[in-house]
Amino acid sequence: MNAEIIAIGTELLLGNILNTNAQFLSRQLAELGISVYYQTVVGDNENRLKETITNALNRANIIITTGGLGPTTDDMSKETIAEALGLKLVVHKESEDKLREFFKTRNICMTNNNLKQALMPEGATVIPNNNGTAPGFIVNKDDKIVIVLPGPPNEMVPMFKDTVKNELQKLNSGVIHSKTLKCCGIGESTIADKLKDIIDKQNNPTIAPYVTDGEVHLRVTAKAESIEEANILISKMEHEVRAIAGDYIYTDDDKTLEETIVSLLLKNNLTLSTAESCTGGLLSGRIINCSGVSDVFKEGFVTYSNEAKKSALNVKQETLAQYGAVSEETAREMVEGLVKKAKSDIGISVTGIAGPTGGTEDKPVGLVYIGFYYKDNITVSKYIFAGNRQKIRNRTVYESLNTLWKMIKN
Amino acid sequence: MNAEIIAIGTELLLGNILNTNAQFLSRQLAELGISVYYQTVVGDNENRLKETITNALNRANIIITTGGLGPTTDDMSKETIAEALGLKLVVHKESEDKLREFFKTRNICMTNNNLKQALMPEGATVIPNNNGTAPGFIVNKDDKIVIVLPGPPNEMVPMFKDTVKNELQKLNSGVIHSKTLKCCGIGESTIADKLKDIIDKQNNPTIAPYVTDGEVHLRVTAKAESIEEANILISKMEHEVRAIAGDYIYTDDDKTLEETIVSLLLKNNLTLSTAESCTGGLLSGRIINCSGVSDVFKEGFVTYSNEAKKSALNVKQETLAQYGAVSEETAREMVEGLVKKAKSDIGISVTGIAGPTGGTEDKPVGLVYIGFYYKDNITVSKYIFAGNRQKIRNRTVYESLNTLWKMIKN
Repeated sequence: MNAEIIAIGTELLLGNILNTNAQFLSRQLAELGISVYYQTVVGDNENRLKETITNALNRANIIITTGGLGPTTDDMSKETIAEALGLKLVVHKESEDKLREFFKTRNICMTNNNLKQALMPEGATVIPNNNGTAPGFIVNKDDKIVIVLPGPPNEMVPMFKDTVKNELQKLNSGVIHSKTLKCCGIGESTIADKLKDIIDKQNNPTIAPYVTDGEVHLRVTAKAESIEEANILISKMEHEVRAIAGDYIYTDDDKTLEETIVSLLLKNNLTLSTAESCTGGLLSGRIINCSGVSDVFKEGFVTYSNEAKKSALNVKQETLAQYGAVSEETAREMVEGLVKKAKSDIGISVTGIAGPTGGTEDKPVGLVYIGFYYKDNITVSKYIFAGNRQKIRNRTVYESLNTLWKMIKN
Repeated sequence: MNAEIIAIGTELLLGNILNTNAQFLSRQLAELGISVYYQTVVGDNENRLKETITNALNRANIIITTGGLGPTTDDMSKETIAEALGLKLVVHKESEDKLREFFKTRNICMTNNNLKQALMPEGATVIPNNNGTAPGFIVNKDDKIVIVLPGPPNEMVPMFKDTVKNELQKLNSGVIHSKTLKCCGIGESTIADKLKDIIDKQNNPTIAPYVTDGEVHLRVTAKAESIEEANILISKMEHEVRAIAGDYIYTDDDKTLEETIVSLLLKNNLTLSTAESCTGGLLSGRIINCSGVSDVFKEGFVTYSNEAKKSALNVKQETLAQYGAVSEETAREMVEGLVKKAKSDIGISVTGIAGPTGGTEDKPVGLVYIGFYYKDNITVSKYIFAGNRQKIRNRTVYESLNTLWKMIKN
């Protein structure tokens, strides 16, 4: 049982938007034990779309398309797919009523172009869309299953979870089950070399290291008749991996680094506060990704200007004048002032030059100081990060979290 | 002249990572006047990769692949592509030296699996990689051009910009040039209906509305012999679009909403400060995306806990007790306290229930209050946003920026 995912939309081929749908669907299908062999993106072009559908019908059992169901004239997925399958489009009364209701409750005048969204191929099972105006559908044709969904993720995702998933679950025996061991503080080739023996003899489960957002994740994937059986295979390999690289693994239950940290802080009754200059709130913003963080996170200060560093954190004017806002001394006074004010067990201060302007020979773009207060002790680390403004800021957030995790994990 | 983009990696088919490379390359190729008709993703599987390359050679003039060049055994792109093209792999001495140098300067021991990264197809032009260990290459075969690049975006992007782009620029006459009119505060089908006459008669330029991060963008794309000629075609259509939907267009020069806002604030000598609860610094973090924001952004407070709301913003204990932390009254006192402390012309306060826990019947998950101080006047707006924690927080940031833009644009 294998599937092909087809995203339809010229905006994808022009690079205007990211194909997050393919990622979501791939992940869901893997959990269902359905292998995805290809993801394809094709534009709003009748001939190429028809060719793509025909190709996919030749090589996959299941085809899932996203996009091109909207009300505008360049949305032609439904028409083209129906034609490729030799099916006529007919008005689906229930969808039409729902469409009218959708606009009525929102007090928006329904325009005529919206009505084409209620047309469906004969014999199709309609997939209701509770978050938008375009319903989807499932059709069976010559032992193949074609599933057509709208493009906006906030519509597609619930439609998949509420309807499509159940239909697919009925098809399959066997599962492909994965477990991801997330690492930080180590590079891909170093860990691959450490794990070479395991990687070389892999069969079932397989192990694949990959890099995402600066972290190396190790994905262990097993094929089996049931989740339980897969888990036995996985845990055997996990045991071998941990014996070699356990020190770098911060989680095995799909938590993010910040969630892992917040759990540790909660467990150890520790509180945290932040003072950010160049990251401007991104660090606190990531920590507050975690629900229930209010017992842990005391307070955050975004002190981008020198004025704010002085008034909010009591950084001395002389320090700023003598050493500059981006200096070990300023990072130290920031974190000192921070914990005095926030009365937290741990304090993190960040000051740096994220660019693109503001760099000098002595203090280049990418220079960042991160200050830590923990157990009556202040340490300040200096980094020089490469990349654009956004990357330097993200890298700074990552290093802050990475250091914090190492500090509190034991 | 058309191209196909092939991303190689089982981690993409499992949904572990997002295919941002395809977006980047599509955008670059569009700017170069090269149409992309297909993006394909295929796994680290020899047969399917060979089939995909062969398909692409039949339908595209240029093939660009990303991924599968790393040191680990599941990285097989180079071997498979060379075989599909009938070329042998030979050691590229310069790449080998560079590889050794790379590890030496980083003080890391080079493992043997890294050496396979110095193998190149005979006759290929090597593309140096200054940010990683895997070089890329370009080969010409039967009037087709095959360009092979590594997967990590921080390696692939500079390699494309520094080397590949120049090679592609030589191939082409003609350009496809686009201009994007970014809108906020209006939905896709409403704007499509307003612009129906323009959309219906479109030919060259074309116009396509699409939704990204909650905003509708209108992309006007012209094909012409030169950028200048394309710009004339585009500006004629832009004029028609602005006559109808000008009120919603916040920029036409690819700035983000926050960059547009910061420019307006600078122009009008206005300063800004923020007090955030549920967004936890994401709003200030986005504003500080803009370089040079220090003249505009005074100070930010991340007051997730009630304690912090009281100590940093002087929100009254009685207010929190009587109305709750998520209430119009608290949002009002937050912004009042904020501007008193930060002495800024504009203040924004945010308090809400981002979930997944903490909702009640009266105050459901998604309830958010956004307070604004501007020209001695405080207004608080109430919203109920749908979605998960992350989506509610992002939506809150977007609405804050949207409202701020409307407030200051005139």
